[in-house]
Amino acid sequence: LPGATVTRCWWGWGRDAEHLDAAAVAGLGTEVGRRLGAGPRHAAAAAQLSDVEVPTSAIAGPTVPGSLEELFDLDPGARVVAGHGQAFREVARAFHGAVVRVPDAVLRPRDADDVERLLAWADQAGVAVVPRGGGTSVVEGTAPPPDEPRPVVTLDLGRLDQVTNVDATSLAARVQAGVFGPALEDQLRPHRLTLRFFPQSFEFSTLGGWIVTRAGGHFATGPTHIDDLVESVDAITPTGRWSSRRLPASGAGPSPDRLLLGSEGTLGVVTSAWVRVRRRPVHRSTATLHAPTMSAAADAVRRIVQAGLQPANARVLDPVEAVLNGAGDGSHAVLVLGFESADRPQRDHLDDAVAIARDAGATISTQPRHIEGDRTATATGGAASWRSSFLAGPYLRDALISLGMVVETFETAITWDRFDAFVGQVRDAAQRAAAQVCGAALVAVRITHAYPDGAAPYFTVIAPGREGVADRVAQWDAVKAAASDAILAAGGTITHHHAVGRTHLPWWRDQVPEPHRRILQAGKAAVDPNRILNPGVLGL
Amino acid sequence: LPGATVTRCWWGWGRDAEHLDAAAVAGLGTEVGRRLGAGPRHAAAAAQLSDVEVPTSAIAGPTVPGSLEELFDLDPGARVVAGHGQAFREVARAFHGAVVRVPDAVLRPRDADDVERLLAWADQAGVAVVPRGGGTSVVEGTAPPPDEPRPVVTLDLGRLDQVTNVDATSLAARVQAGVFGPALEDQLRPHRLTLRFFPQSFEFSTLGGWIVTRAGGHFATGPTHIDDLVESVDAITPTGRWSSRRLPASGAGPSPDRLLLGSEGTLGVVTSAWVRVRRRPVHRSTATLHAPTMSAAADAVRRIVQAGLQPANARVLDPVEAVLNGAGDGSHAVLVLGFESADRPQRDHLDDAVAIARDAGATISTQPRHIEGDRTATATGGAASWRSSFLAGPYLRDALISLGMVVETFETAITWDRFDAFVGQVRDAAQRAAAQVCGAALVAVRITHAYPDGAAPYFTVIAPGREGVADRVAQWDAVKAAASDAILAAGGTITHHHAVGRTHLPWWRDQVPEPHRRILQAGKAAVDPNRILNPGVLGL
Repeated sequence: LPGATVTRCWWGWGRDAEHLDAAAVAGLGTEVGRRLGAGPRHAAAAAQLSDVEVPTSAIAGPTVPGSLEELFDLDPGARVVAGHGQAFREVARAFHGAVVRVPDAVLRPRDADDVERLLAWADQAGVAVVPRGGGTSVVEGTAPPPDEPRPVVTLDLGRLDQVTNVDATSLAARVQAGVFGPALEDQLRPHRLTLRFFPQSFEFSTLGGWIVTRAGGHFATGPTHIDDLVESVDAITPTGRWSSRRLPASGAGPSPDRLLLGSEGTLGVVTSAWVRVRRRPVHRSTATLHAPTMSAAADAVRRIVQAGLQPANARVLDPVEAVLNGAGDGSHAVLVLGFESADRPQRDHLDDAVAIARDAGATISTQPRHIEGDRTATATGGAASWRSSFLAGPYLRDALISLGMVVETFETAITWDRFDAFVGQVRDAAQRAAAQVCGAALVAVRITHAYPDGAAPYFTVIAPGREGVADRVAQWDAVKAAASDAILAAGGTITHHHAVGRTHLPWWRDQVPEPHRRILQAGKAAVDPNRILNPGVLGL
Repeated sequence: LPGATVTRCWWGWGRDAEHLDAAAVAGLGTEVGRRLGAGPRHAAAAAQLSDVEVPTSAIAGPTVPGSLEELFDLDPGARVVAGHGQAFREVARAFHGAVVRVPDAVLRPRDADDVERLLAWADQAGVAVVPRGGGTSVVEGTAPPPDEPRPVVTLDLGRLDQVTNVDATSLAARVQAGVFGPALEDQLRPHRLTLRFFPQSFEFSTLGGWIVTRAGGHFATGPTHIDDLVESVDAITPTGRWSSRRLPASGAGPSPDRLLLGSEGTLGVVTSAWVRVRRRPVHRSTATLHAPTMSAAADAVRRIVQAGLQPANARVLDPVEAVLNGAGDGSHAVLVLGFESADRPQRDHLDDAVAIARDAGATISTQPRHIEGDRTATATGGAASWRSSFLAGPYLRDALISLGMVVETFETAITWDRFDAFVGQVRDAAQRAAAQVCGAALVAVRITHAYPDGAAPYFTVIAPGREGVADRVAQWDAVKAAASDAILAAGGTITHHHAVGRTHLPWWRDQVPEPHRRILQAGKAAVDPNRILNPGVLGL
C-alpha cells in the first residue's frame, strides 16, 4: 500500500508514531541494565531508509512485458522494506542500515489473474518469487534467499484486500489473501461477524500470511490455529490454479487445504480463502489468579482444558514474565482466564475454571468480572496488563534493539507429561547459552495456547549485546541454536505458530519424518518445476 | 485372527449369529415389498465359503523367504474373506459366491518390524500389497486391484492389537494399528479412559483403518473425525520409516499426520498412533424432538451448533428415515439430541439446545432425560430407536441383500447456505435413477454430523433388484453414478467419512484441486517408487 510506508517504521515494528519516545527508551535502558546487573544501556539512532545502499535491480525495464509493467515497483525504499521481516537478526541489522539482500523488484498484483500472469512471467524469465503478506515473519520466511543466483522479486499481495463474500447462513466469508487484520474485521463488522483471529501481529499481517504459516490466533484453547478456521483455499501454482471446495468437512483423501496450510509460499500463492467466522461475542467473563509457581499454574490450565472447558484466554506468565508484563513482582506466576460467547453468559464456565485453578493451588488476584455487550472488554488487573503488554511487546523489543540488546522470542509445544521438565531444559539451555555469549540474560516463559494433551510454552530472551550488530546477531544465533537443540532433544516442535522460514530449517528437518520431506520435495517439483516459489524455505 | 473367521459372516457384515433369522427375513421381505408397492420378496440362501472357486496362489512357497514364511496365510478361505469388503457390490457378489479377485496370500505381521520386512520382500519380489484393518471399507478400499498384473497380497494388521502406552497426564494412548474398537476400549477401561470413537463399523474396524480413511466417529459435532484425535503416527513406507512426534499442536510446515490421514494405504502402512483419549463420561442428557420437515430439523441443528453448543449426538432423520428406524410414522422428521461430559451435568446445555430447536419449530417427543454414572445410557424413545437401528443397520442391509434388493448408503457434506437445495437435488437424482433402473425406490436421508458452517447428509437407497447379481450390481452402479454426479455438480464432497477407495475415484478426481493430485502422485513415486502399496486407490 503506497501510503502505508509513510507512517510504518521501515526497519522495525509497526508505526513510527507508536515507538517509545526518547525518554521512555532511556528509562528502559536504565531499568534493563539494572535488571541484568550492569550499568544503564544507551540508545543508538536508527539508520535512515535513504542511507541504505541498494544494489541496482536485476530486473530492468526491457525484461518486463508492457502489460505487467505497472505492477512492478522498483523504488529502492520499497525494495528495502520488502526485503526484510521482523526476525531479530533482520530488525537489528536494518536498524543499523544493513540488509542482507534486497529484492530486485516488488510486484503488486491487483487480483488473482495478475498473480497468474506474474508467475508465468517469472517462471519463463528465471526469476525467484517470494510471496509476501504483511512481512511480519520472525523466521526470515519472506527474506530473499541470500544464495539464490537468479533475480529475486517480492510478490506483495497487499492489493488483494477485500472481503468479497459473506455467507451469514453458514457463518463463513470469502476473503482475499492480502487483507490485513483490521481491514478484515472492519469489513465483517457491518455483518455483525468476526473472524476473531488476533495474533500479536494482527495489525500488520494478512490472512494469506496466517494460512501459509499456520498462524496461532486469539483463542488460547479450541480453534487455536488458522487451520481450524479455513473452509477452502484458492491458490495459484506456476503450473496451474488450485481451488478447493467450500466444505464444512470431508474425508476424501488427504486434505488439500492442510497441504497448503504451512506451505510458506513454496507450493503456490494463496489468493483467497473461505474462512469460518462467528457472531461477535457479547458475554465475557474474566479473572486473574496467582499461583506459587509456573508449574502450578500450568497444572491448573491442564485441568481446566481437560475438564472440557475452552477459555478464549488461558495465558500463564511465569514469575519473570509477570514482572516484564507489569503483572507481578517475581514472587508468583500469573494465570489470566477469559471466556466469551455470542450466545450465553459465561459466569458458570469461569466459576468452574476458577474452582479448578484454586484446587490446583492458585488464588484469585482480580475478582471475576462479567461484561455484557458488543464491545472490547474493559479488562482490569492482570488481564489488562497482559493485553497491553501483548500489543506493546514488539515496540518494546524494538526499543531494546535500539539499546543494543539481544532480544527475541521463540515458542514450541509439548505434551503435559513432559511439560515441566521440558520447560526447565529449554529455559536452562537458553539461559546457559545467553550467559556464555552475553554474560547475563533474562529468560521469561509464558503459555500462549493450551490443549487437553499439552501446551505451547513461549520464551523471551533479553541479554546485553556486543557493540557491532554482526556480533549481536551472532550472539542471538548461538542462543537460538542452543535453545532449538534443546527443544528438539526434549521432544518438542521447532515452532508452535511462528513457521519454519529460513531460520528453523535445520531443526525442522530433524523434527518431521524423512518420507514426509521427500513427499514435499517431489510435490514441489511437480507443481513448481523451476523452483521459483520462495526457494529454500522448507528445504524446497 | 484365526478364530474370528469361525463366527464372522464370511460374505457380509459381522457375526453369523446376529444376522436376522429366517422368519425375520421373510417378514422383512413382505414389508419391503409392500412399501415399494410390490409383492413380497423372497430370500435366497447365501453361498458357502467352500463353494467359492479360488484360483491358485501366485505366491508359491519357494518365493517366500524362510524367515517370513510363518507370516503367510495361503488358506483359500482366508484369501476370499480378505479379498472383499462391505461395499454393496462386494457383499452382493460374495453372497452369491462370486468374487472379483482373491489376494494371492494374506500376510499377518506380528509387529512393525515384520511389516518392514514384508514390504521389503514385496518391493523386491514385485508384489502389490493391500493393507487391511477390519476390512469394512464400503468403497472397495481393501479390494485387490482387479487389473493389477502383479501378484497381490493382503497385509492384515490384526496381530498388532495392543494399547502399548497410556499417558494419563496428557490423556493420550499409543495404540497399535490393528486394534479393533472393542479391544481398544477394553484396554483403556482399566485406566478409566475412552477414545469415544464409535463409527457404525466400531466392532469390526481398527484404529489404523480409521486413520487412513479419515473415519467419522461418535461425536456428531466437535471432534467428528479421527483426524482430531491423532497426536502422532508411526508408519512404514517401502523406502523408510515414518514417525511423527507426539505434539499437542505444531505450526512447523504442512502437517505430516494430515498427509497420512486419508492416504488409504497408498503412502505407507500405519503401524501405531498416539491418540487423544478422555475420561469416561458420567453425565448424560438426551431428548428427542419432532420437526415438521427435514429442513426445519436441519435448521434447528444449525442454530444449536452455531450457538457454540457441541452435542455429542445431534442426529436428524428425515420422515422416510424415521419410518425405517421405527422412530416415526412418515409425517415428521426426528431430531435426537445428546450431551455428555466427564465433568459436569449437561442439563443446561440440553435445555439451551431444546429451546433453540423449539424456536426452529420442533416439538419435544421424548422428554429430556438426565443420566448420571459411568455406564452406557439407557436411552429411550427416538434415541433408543436410533441407537439400536444404527448398530443393526448393516445386518438389516445384509438381509435385504439376501432378498435380492439393491441397498446401499452414501454420504457427503455441504455448507448450510446450500443445504436444503443440495439434499433435494441429490435425493431426487438418486430417486430418479433408482426409479429408472429398479422401477421404484425408497430414498431416506439423515444428518450424521453437523458443523457451524454445514452438515453431513447421509442417504440410504432401497430398491428392488433384478434376478442376477451382476444385474443388481449394475443397477446400483447406475444409481451411485447419478447420485455422485449430483453431489459433485451441487458442490458437495464425494465422501464425508467413507473414504475414496476404488469406488469414488472418478468423482474424487473432479473434487480436489488438480495440483494437489499431482503432488500426491509425485509424493507416491518418492516413497513407493514401485507402486506396491494399494495401487490404483486415490489414482496412485
